[in-house]
Amino acid sequence: MYLRNHWYVAARTEEVGRGLLRRLILNEPVLLYRTKAGEAVAMEDRCCHRSVPLSIGKLVDDNVQCGYHGLVFDRDGRCVFMPGQDKIPAAAKVKAYPLIERWGMIWLWMGEGKGDPALMPDFGIVDRPGWAALGDRVHLKANYLLGIDNILDLSHLSYVHERTIGTVDVARTAVRTTREGDMVKVTRWMMDVPPPPMFAKFGLTGNIDRWQIVTAAPPCYLWLEVGGAKTGTGAAEGNRSEGIERWNLNCITPETDKSAHMFWTEVRNFQVDDAAAGEMLKSQMVLTLQEDADVLEVQQRTMDEMPDAPTIDITFDAGSIQFRRAVKRLLEEQANSAREKALA
Amino acid sequence: MYLRNHWYVAARTEEVGRGLLRRLILNEPVLLYRTKAGEAVAMEDRCCHRSVPLSIGKLVDDNVQCGYHGLVFDRDGRCVFMPGQDKIPAAAKVKAYPLIERWGMIWLWMGEGKGDPALMPDFGIVDRPGWAALGDRVHLKANYLLGIDNILDLSHLSYVHERTIGTVDVARTAVRTTREGDMVKVTRWMMDVPPPPMFAKFGLTGNIDRWQIVTAAPPCYLWLEVGGAKTGTGAAEGNRSEGIERWNLNCITPETDKSAHMFWTEVRNFQVDDAAAGEMLKSQMVLTLQEDADVLEVQQRTMDEMPDAPTIDITFDAGSIQFRRAVKRLLEEQANSAREKALA
Amino acid sequence: MYLRNHWYVAARTEEVGRGLLRRLILNEPVLLYRTKAGEAVAMEDRCCHRSVPLSIGKLVDDNVQCGYHGLVFDRDGRCVFMPGQDKIPAAAKVKAYPLIERWGMIWLWMGEGKGDPALMPDFGIVDRPGWAALGDRVHLKANYLLGIDNILDLSHLSYVHERTIGTVDVARTAVRTTREGDMVKVTRWMMDVPPPPMFAKFGLTGNIDRWQIVTAAPPCYLWLEVGGAKTGTGAAEGNRSEGIERWNLNCITPETDKSAHMFWTEVRNFQVDDAAAGEMLKSQMVLTLQEDADVLEVQQRTMDEMPDAPTIDITFDAGSIQFRRAVKRLLEEQANSAREKALA
Ligand code: FES
Ligand code: FES
Ligand code: FES
Repeated sequence: MYLRNHWYVAARTEEVGRGLLRRLILNEPVLLYRTKAGEAVAMEDRCCHRSVPLSIGKLVDDNVQCGYHGLVFDRDGRCVFMPGQDKIPAAAKVKAYPLIERWGMIWLWMGEGKGDPALMPDFGIVDRPGWAALGDRVHLKANYLLGIDNILDLSHLSYVHERTIGTVDVARTAVRTTREGDMVKVTRWMMDVPPPPMFAKFGLTGNIDRWQIVTAAPPCYLWLEVGGAKTGTGAAEGNRSEGIERWNLNCITPETDKSAHMFWTEVRNFQVDDAAAGEMLKSQMVLTLQEDADVLEVQQRTMDEMPDAPTIDITFDAGSIQFRRAVKRLLEEQANSAREKALA
Repeated sequence: MYLRNHWYVAARTEEVGRGLLRRLILNEPVLLYRTKAGEAVAMEDRCCHRSVPLSIGKLVDDNVQCGYHGLVFDRDGRCVFMPGQDKIPAAAKVKAYPLIERWGMIWLWMGEGKGDPALMPDFGIVDRPGWAALGDRVHLKANYLLGIDNILDLSHLSYVHERTIGTVDVARTAVRTTREGDMVKVTRWMMDVPPPPMFAKFGLTGNIDRWQIVTAAPPCYLWLEVGGAKTGTGAAEGNRSEGIERWNLNCITPETDKSAHMFWTEVRNFQVDDAAAGEMLKSQMVLTLQEDADVLEVQQRTMDEMPDAPTIDITFDAGSIQFRRAVKRLLEEQANSAREKALA
Repeated sequence: MYLRNHWYVAARTEEVGRGLLRRLILNEPVLLYRTKAGEAVAMEDRCCHRSVPLSIGKLVDDNVQCGYHGLVFDRDGRCVFMPGQDKIPAAAKVKAYPLIERWGMIWLWMGEGKGDPALMPDFGIVDRPGWAALGDRVHLKANYLLGIDNILDLSHLSYVHERTIGTVDVARTAVRTTREGDMVKVTRWMMDVPPPPMFAKFGLTGNIDRWQIVTAAPPCYLWLEVGGAKTGTGAAEGNRSEGIERWNLNCITPETDKSAHMFWTEVRNFQVDDAAAGEMLKSQMVLTLQEDADVLEVQQRTMDEMPDAPTIDITFDAGSIQFRRAVKRLLEEQANSAREKALA
């Protein structure tokens, strides 16, 4: 059960070209490719004739031809050629997914109708002038909610990432958890502390005020702001101009019930034109997120092996608990609305 | 659920010798070996004592000795030696399968009683004087019916075998589908067309009349005739003497519900004494059938992942639809007859 | 369903140190390590917070810290540190297992309460002065009862170990099966026979009286005495002083329902100070037990594939049948007692 009437990232822009890419999204096999003009196309990756994946076929101009008996489908999923017969039945079609390519990612509407662009999350900071962006995809062998839990409780930085980016200050500092509608925000301010090595490297010397602010919105969007500014310059009161900032934007798209695609984009307002710094930051992120992926994989496996084992909550779980509550409520609304439609 | 009162190919003659060969046939583990005199034997590959496969034991003359506690079974599956005791209980036996070795293949009766040789399909063309035969086994990771569908609709040649033997004419040409009892026949004539490369190579020049005639009989027998003759020599009217012919005989034996053994034999009336041509034709077949096996594997996997996804039929499916209908009816008859016996 | 109020071997002494060892015991994930003082500790290998295995965390002195959010548990499984909060709820604990380290092995109490040391099996011969001991662990891909069957019927030596230690005399000689409470004893005397190669090598020449005596006690303890003495010296009447003896002590601990840890220890009263002889005997045992493990693996697999296939019993099964009957009765008693407690 997933929230359907939402935009989910299915791929990064650079992953899709004139080849045929198969990807599971919310348990559905999706075929992704580009037209000759470069427009991205997404459709069901299962031929409606005898269930062979279209991705083992081939592109014929902007259409895809099934590799078994040669049916050809256009970018809207309509069958436009059927060997040996002229009349093509109307049922000869596969599902096409409404698609928007924006912010370096390909977003699919997984719900009813054509999809409302206004429902996309605001990842506009990716395009903000004067900031630099980079990103990648990480495969999680865990339910997407475990991935969201992970980011909503950054105290894990001190343990999972001990060897890379963690500092002990994070787990020591209390957070404030707030809600606005279905959004959950977890805010942590570490005042007058030494800068972590990465910040020091990029010019912050002396004690700083550090912040980590995670905002999560259903179904699976996350905005993580981290930054630091010289103590006394008023960052906590709203003046971040004396500091440096990184934003990590995330869409953790369910692949199956026990795996997910984590599409992350990181933007920063420092060393913006320094390609080497960008490379370094990206490889650090890849390493860090793989550490998370490794933990989430054994977590999922253990939960599968012992589904009824009891668990306890700790203070830092407040954000995750509220987020899961919001998702649960939205899923119930979705089920109710489906029921009402069925009765109407 | 399989049709039981039939002969199924379990192995090719050259696969079985003085070693112990285990093979699953209709989900049953079967042990195959030869006596010293060279006669093939087939019995349940599960010791009736503690369920160890007999195939990990060894041959003692014409009998097989279990590798765990040493029980010895004769070729009829009767226990003839039991360590530490003289009296052997009557229940100490494993199932032996009625077996006929013919046409280079070992056929097992998978039904009740001793098996009626008259129920074997007629693969006699394998022995026809002046023709040459060759064959092999292909493992399909798909239900046997998907393998039969594949052959009953040869339009796939134009797509699956595009890189090997396919020509576009096949999918362009309509077929005639007929039934005779439980047998289904699909006939395709391509009149006055250029010969495919393979036929040209073996001496057909100028335009030809080509034929492809598939006959299928439950449970899993297929006769595929393909050939070509100079246009105007009357092949379609019955005179094939000016042409060249290949027959492909097939028994696609279910292994499990999702895999099968495809035993194919190909006979031809050209280049009969040319060993190099035979080698070439065989390696071409191996390559071609592996292309089919690859498609069938992803087809089966997709059907398993999405068992309820809707499909449509096309004109070329007529043969396959009629064949499946015949199998279904025969399975119902088999179930009814079992029910009647249970009541009697 | 396992017998709970018993001591099960979880590891050999040398397997556990200052690292974190995860092992499944009776389907439960167990974490094993040693304190700085060298005491072995066993606890549930699942963090009570969010189900990550503690074995991916690290030791902090004598405690273990979860690798995800940093909770720290002491050797009794109590949470003693929780990042970001001072008050630790009482529910924050994982199960600690009562543990006794004895005879070179680590034994866990898998039942209720603290475990009664008096319920340990008597493996005291391991420490007997003048005898030498060696041992190892073998992983069985089979239910533990199949492992016990294997030892209770040594007639398999003649077949499974034909290439290593088997002689034909074993399967030829009848056994006597007796019971004492829940213990089952299978006794075999081979009188006035040539010594097997291994005994000859260690000084027994001329014909001997050989014995093999297996004692099995629920849940999974086995004592196997084998030996031989010059014929006529009265071994069968109780005087073994003229012979040589090996004892094989075994605890075959269930890992999952379809796998087990076989912890074996072998003691001998000959070549006691001969390290090379010990090496030779150990590598012979490792080889021999792997032959058993290979048979048990295909046996388990076949039983899984054909759970309802009928089996027959032979004379040599008497010991195994009685042992399984005892286990069944004890399991029923255990279930009844749980039911009574639930009602009380
Ligand atoms: S399965 Fe695609 S055309 Fe037949
Ligand atoms: S399992 Fe075959 S003889 Fe025991
Ligand atoms: S899972 Fe162990 S501390 Fe959170």
